[in-house]
Amino acid sequence: MSTPSVSNSITIRLEVPPNAATVSTLTSAVEGQGGVVTAVDVSGSGADHLQIDLTVATGGDQDRERIVQTLREMPGVTVGPVSDRVFLAHLGGKLTIESRVPIRHRDDLSLVYTPGVARVSQQIADHPEDARRLTIKRNTIAVVSDGSAVLGLGNIGPLGALPVMEGKAALFKRFAGIDAFPLVLDTQDVEEIIATVKNVAPVFAGINLEDISAPRCFEIEARLRAELDIPVFHDDQHGTGIVATAALLNALTVVGKKVEDVRVVLSGAGAAGSAVLRMMQAAGVRDVTVVDIDGIIHVSREGMHASVQEIAEKTNPRGLTGKLSDAIVGADVFVGVSAPNILTEADVQAMAPDSIVFALANPVAEIDPAIAARHAAVVASGRSDYANQINNVLAFPGVFRGLLDARSNKVTDDMLLAAAKALAAVVTPEELNPTYVIPSVFHPEVHETVAAAVREVAERDR
Amino acid sequence: MSTPSVSNSITIRLEVPPNAATVSTLTSAVEGQGGVVTAVDVSGSGADHLQIDLTVATGGDQDRERIVQTLREMPGVTVGPVSDRVFLAHLGGKLTIESRVPIRHRDDLSLVYTPGVARVSQQIADHPEDARRLTIKRNTIAVVSDGSAVLGLGNIGPLGALPVMEGKAALFKRFAGIDAFPLVLDTQDVEEIIATVKNVAPVFAGINLEDISAPRCFEIEARLRAELDIPVFHDDQHGTGIVATAALLNALTVVGKKVEDVRVVLSGAGAAGSAVLRMMQAAGVRDVTVVDIDGIIHVSREGMHASVQEIAEKTNPRGLTGKLSDAIVGADVFVGVSAPNILTEADVQAMAPDSIVFALANPVAEIDPAIAARHAAVVASGRSDYANQINNVLAFPGVFRGLLDARSNKVTDDMLLAAAKALAAVVTPEELNPTYVIPSVFHPEVHETVAAAVREVAERDR
Repeated sequence: MSTPSVSNSITIRLEVPPNAATVSTLTSAVEGQGGVVTAVDVSGSGADHLQIDLTVATGGDQDRERIVQTLREMPGVTVGPVSDRVFLAHLGGKLTIESRVPIRHRDDLSLVYTPGVARVSQQIADHPEDARRLTIKRNTIAVVSDGSAVLGLGNIGPLGALPVMEGKAALFKRFAGIDAFPLVLDTQDVEEIIATVKNVAPVFAGINLEDISAPRCFEIEARLRAELDIPVFHDDQHGTGIVATAALLNALTVVGKKVEDVRVVLSGAGAAGSAVLRMMQAAGVRDVTVVDIDGIIHVSREGMHASVQEIAEKTNPRGLTGKLSDAIVGADVFVGVSAPNILTEADVQAMAPDSIVFALANPVAEIDPAIAARHAAVVASGRSDYANQINNVLAFPGVFRGLLDARSNKVTDDMLLAAAKALAAVVTPEELNPTYVIPSVFHPEVHETVAAAVREVAERDR
Repeated sequence: MSTPSVSNSITIRLEVPPNAATVSTLTSAVEGQGGVVTAVDVSGSGADHLQIDLTVATGGDQDRERIVQTLREMPGVTVGPVSDRVFLAHLGGKLTIESRVPIRHRDDLSLVYTPGVARVSQQIADHPEDARRLTIKRNTIAVVSDGSAVLGLGNIGPLGALPVMEGKAALFKRFAGIDAFPLVLDTQDVEEIIATVKNVAPVFAGINLEDISAPRCFEIEARLRAELDIPVFHDDQHGTGIVATAALLNALTVVGKKVEDVRVVLSGAGAAGSAVLRMMQAAGVRDVTVVDIDGIIHVSREGMHASVQEIAEKTNPRGLTGKLSDAIVGADVFVGVSAPNILTEADVQAMAPDSIVFALANPVAEIDPAIAARHAAVVASGRSDYANQINNVLAFPGVFRGLLDARSNKVTDDMLLAAAKALAAVVTPEELNPTYVIPSVFHPEVHETVAAAVREVAERDR
């Protein structure tokens, strides 16, 4: 049986005898099969029966089957429809496009459509900068994906990516009031992606690239940044970089070490790894060694892709060679944005005292956070069921809010570093401790704080 | 002074002495300058003054200036801020993108984002047809323009077109509950437009092309129809075709003539003209002669563009040559989708008895409807200040509603003709008269009636 999760919730409609003990009997049966009852609703009743909707968090498809089967076999119990809460929530999609203007009668039509709208169009034709004031370009971004690297599912294409992009758009609205439209592309060709985004750019004030595989994502972002006059931000890179760096700065404060003194080992040289590296170095880290699937990256390694070569040239000052287990010895910090179960307990034990371990691979981390915590002083992961969750949702809403409010036409490393520092500072000195180095995404000040920091730099560097 | 219009409304804040006759003095002054006061709001008061917000419909910029100046010169009157209602309505754009799902806490996140959303993505990756059920593809279309033929303003480009496309999207939501996103393109190259729309197509269930100039619009629509598996509809063509045909069918009933017997003269061979021609012929018109800027279109004319040649081959059965004034003699019906002031009063007098005149050029018609009405039995135009307004808003919301509900992957002439007939039938026999051959866009049954007719044919012909 797997750990039950709300993301595997079902709601089961049952008809049961109207006995006092019925509910506890059902609940016990569910729990005996590893489920957790999260809601009981009596949705109907009659002289000789009760209708109960039982909502259960399960461990997955197999646990769900077993739970339903167990209930079916209980005497007097009739099992009706079984609904999956996740799929229910997704029916018809997660977004709507609404009109902000009333259209009640002919007069309204003449203001917001013809002939009134012609005056606005002429104004913008004469003064294109007015588009930011008079159209949705003021507040709208695109969430763009080709579906080539979706969550842990890999290359599932545009339609498969769409629910994730819709979710991203919903988060932009929820946390930063930004209107975000999910554009999933029916091409994976780099030139076609660049051309398409350039052609649709006029209505947008920013582009969020998402779930586009490395190394194509580097070129796509770089080319779009060069060729568009609106900011372009690949969240898988920079969102992770910002949040990981913010958590690192706070963790160093907790253990009393200086960013310029520590030895860092970074596992992963892909989208997230490259950005985490860049951000950590901008924050002051001087001694970082990067490890990928072939071991420690060093300048003498052969056959390196250009992006890996670039990493080799700006890291590993002590010229280490070998594997992760070689690099980790005596390291102060481990940051993993790579693969599951590649860091052992012995590795953590070999680190310096008061070590910091960020095991961020998703959904299975480089090491079980509980195991790392036996030896490290501060542990973080991407998991919501452990303390110190490194979650990109802490960064992208505020970053774009700041960019849009500044009407910035670019996004720079200075802005991202400002975001990381502002995010770190949301945790006050009184609150800071080894299990709280990064705030919750629902913290009421997070997004406006990040936005204000980005806006300030964007306006300064316009 | 021009005719005052709500689409040139201003709201003027005034400080005035607290006299009983103040409001009527102001109102008279405004009317003397050709303005119409549509609202008076006392927004503040003190011992020695009143603050009044006066909303005035004006004839345009010059009238507006004169009105404000007149008020400024009145003794005791201080003029404060002057706001333009159209521009006020457009501040920040006319659309928002909202989340349909609550995101209150971690459990909500895990249902609508990671990890729950991964299950939905996997489902769609395995069963792409489920995208119509589980994502916004269910109900979302794109309003696509390159800004090359915007209203009466011509080629003003994508940013200039954006307010019109936003307005269109607001109308789709208001009248048919459809989520519509305005995609304005930064290219006018036919191949680039086709490639871009194909690449962004996955999230959409339909494409509405808008304000793309002829003859490029024909190829773009034809190619996209051939290469996409969702319906593509150029409203400037087919919307006009549907509504004009609906009005024509009703007008013929009013005058007691049969569609297969009448002689029709059509002025205009562009986007709207081609579609009106096609739809009228599908509805049964057999004798139609088309006139463009070079005169009557006939097979012996030289140097014709391919689309004009096509028209020549399927019209003008009596082999007429010459100009509009030649073709119009003895005609039963004139339909104009062309240019201002090309049809004279004498032309209308030369038509058959009980003639029908649809002068649809926008904003200035082929003939003043009031002049045409001196001689024709039924007159229609695109103007909202005359009876029988031929307004595309009567068609496109219902057409797309029907297409989306049928999950149609195409749009055919049969569907459009069904829409025209359904639209005509909204006007009951009891209601039908020379000044009411087409319903108002706010008629409560219009859009669902059109949608039902389109859906029926789409499901039949799937």
